[in-house]
Amino acid sequence: MVTEKALQGIKVLDLTRVLAGPYVSMVLGDLGAEVIKIETPQGGDDSRGYGPFINGESVYFMSLNRNKKSLSLNLKSEEGKEIFLRMVQDADVVLENYRPGTMEKLGLGYEELERVNPKIIYAASSGFGHTGPYSKRAAYDLIVQGMGGIMSLTGEPDGTPTRVGASIGDITSGLFTTIGILSAIHKRGDTGKGQKVDVAMLDCQVAILENAIARYAVDGQSPKATGNRHPSITPFAVFKANNGHIIVAAGNDALWKKWCQAVGREELAEDNRFTTNALRTDNWDELETIMGEVIAHRSVEEWLQHFDQAGIPASPIHNVEQVIKHPQVISREMVVHQQHPVAGEIVMPGIPIKLSKTPGTIDRPAPLLGQHTLEILSGLGFEEAVIEEMRAKGIV
Amino acid sequence: MVTEKALQGIKVLDLTRVLAGPYVSMVLGDLGAEVIKIETPQGGDDSRGYGPFINGESVYFMSLNRNKKSLSLNLKSEEGKEIFLRMVQDADVVLENYRPGTMEKLGLGYEELERVNPKIIYAASSGFGHTGPYSKRAAYDLIVQGMGGIMSLTGEPDGTPTRVGASIGDITSGLFTTIGILSAIHKRGDTGKGQKVDVAMLDCQVAILENAIARYAVDGQSPKATGNRHPSITPFAVFKANNGHIIVAAGNDALWKKWCQAVGREELAEDNRFTTNALRTDNWDELETIMGEVIAHRSVEEWLQHFDQAGIPASPIHNVEQVIKHPQVISREMVVHQQHPVAGEIVMPGIPIKLSKTPGTIDRPAPLLGQHTLEILSGLGFEEAVIEEMRAKGIV
Repeated sequence: MVTEKALQGIKVLDLTRVLAGPYVSMVLGDLGAEVIKIETPQGGDDSRGYGPFINGESVYFMSLNRNKKSLSLNLKSEEGKEIFLRMVQDADVVLENYRPGTMEKLGLGYEELERVNPKIIYAASSGFGHTGPYSKRAAYDLIVQGMGGIMSLTGEPDGTPTRVGASIGDITSGLFTTIGILSAIHKRGDTGKGQKVDVAMLDCQVAILENAIARYAVDGQSPKATGNRHPSITPFAVFKANNGHIIVAAGNDALWKKWCQAVGREELAEDNRFTTNALRTDNWDELETIMGEVIAHRSVEEWLQHFDQAGIPASPIHNVEQVIKHPQVISREMVVHQQHPVAGEIVMPGIPIKLSKTPGTIDRPAPLLGQHTLEILSGLGFEEAVIEEMRAKGIV
Repeated sequence: MVTEKALQGIKVLDLTRVLAGPYVSMVLGDLGAEVIKIETPQGGDDSRGYGPFINGESVYFMSLNRNKKSLSLNLKSEEGKEIFLRMVQDADVVLENYRPGTMEKLGLGYEELERVNPKIIYAASSGFGHTGPYSKRAAYDLIVQGMGGIMSLTGEPDGTPTRVGASIGDITSGLFTTIGILSAIHKRGDTGKGQKVDVAMLDCQVAILENAIARYAVDGQSPKATGNRHPSITPFAVFKANNGHIIVAAGNDALWKKWCQAVGREELAEDNRFTTNALRTDNWDELETIMGEVIAHRSVEEWLQHFDQAGIPASPIHNVEQVIKHPQVISREMVVHQQHPVAGEIVMPGIPIKLSKTPGTIDRPAPLLGQHTLEILSGLGFEEAVIEEMRAKGIV
């Protein structure tokens, strides 16, 4: 029995643009928070201009801004600031991803907002964070991927460092920011006080390096990219079947033995170059050659069926079309079709957090710029004529 | 003034192994939750066996299990189950990453636990989720990276699909699970009832594809890997300077003009192949050649200084050593040195969520297997002799 969504009643004023910040407010909105996206009247979120477009609407923007209302508001104008500060009075969260210092310059830094509403949670997602020598610099996803080390671990050994093909610099920062906000909301339940949540994209890249830092500390060597195999669990790798690539993940001794049996090479299970994970990892070059020769003889589909029956984890490598047509992905409602008033039907990822009693829902498409300005300002008591006047002046 | 940590008072019973689950409980523990890691007396968490080791202790395990206590407990024994169920009575969260169905087989599924404690939040992190045709299959990071599409977007166009060099299949799933838990805790404040949080690694891979699904929907073509450039923002790419790689992120018209001026090629700013982002993206091959020729003449360091003065975002590509020695990373306390009772000094990532009033802290190193068994069972009222007897029987 579903009554209300998990975050229903939480009100978020979202000043963010493009990706890291909008990802936060999307996750919060999916789980039931009320998100008011505050955009400059002059063009709004930059990503409204990122192609490709459908009927002039950016699919980039539409993918990331569902479940939000749009208020156009010029925060550089006195009237705009005043309206914003009134809204802060009964909001729970203010979210921004400006370069550090920008909100203070506008007179809207955390200290100001806290004075207006001591319960406010002020969440700042930035490239380098609100402290430290790089604080005031601009960063983008590619920059923090480069500076944070993940590119040095991705790609072929001794090849060019490789960018991760989704903007995980932004997205992981968005996820950590969301966790910070929810933790601060939880704490506020005890203390009655809000606080500032400061999350840096670069910090998040360091946080997701897994054990690479600890491995460096062991031997003083920066870990290298290991191509398509796991650096320390073997075999966990990609092989070429006769019609494409296949992943085999037989990364413990029992699975390794099963694999040898499944391919009719029982002698390998006894081969003392390969009996433990450590040996298999050390002797990877020889193992890769042997496994590669075996796998090259049959097709991806034949091997998948064969390994599935033998209980050996294996998988194909999907392109985006194969992902969204996969029965498991469809069954989990991870592909959502939605009607947009201008673009028509659009397709986007679903909600990966499945809550049994208060599941998230996707209720409204991404807003047009300022679509909810009249509604929101009327709710604050502004007359329609006054709103029109502000619109003419570029304030809303 | 710091009083208490944000999640202080939240008690987590953590049954998870290896990465996705332990990452959740690490984040919760960093922010102040009490995490009791429950491990099999026979070896404990599998990742205790993953190399490299320092004095026999796994750095993989130590990197992911700080701020946790370890209770060794055999959940297959009646006594073990009974102890676990007693602990569930006053816990807030049970976290598991078994293959779906395993907890039910143990008689410890969500329905059982809810009967014991209706307020319990039951969080399950699995490969494919607790529903759908693939639910019961095993998955690992590499498998969901392959099935979820990100490998098809990573690497050179028309090259081999490329694994992301950190286990982001596990880690993003861990982050979404953490968000689900905190949302369920928030909701419980209103309803007094817990719920089940079901997060699948594969779903999370779909959720981080950014706008790739929407782009597919526009033209029916699966987006291809684009090497080291952003697929739709240009120039956002890696270039070769005369002594290494450099990233340039001049992805809007103003920055593009600045770049042309900074390198003394003002005529490019007027070149009608490159005047808008869309044109620069369409004419990338020509642009890459031109920019590459310019950048090839000087060193990474020279260009970084030059671009920095010109206000153009640019960065080097760091290896792990360069990451942990970077002044911004150090200033943000993103590299933490900790004493471990057996391994001595170890190094690990810090906490990327900076809360102004209740910051997270790293208080204790990863536990030895069963290090807190006596303490925890004594707290439940067991006599030391009884605990020793259970230890002899392999129950704890």
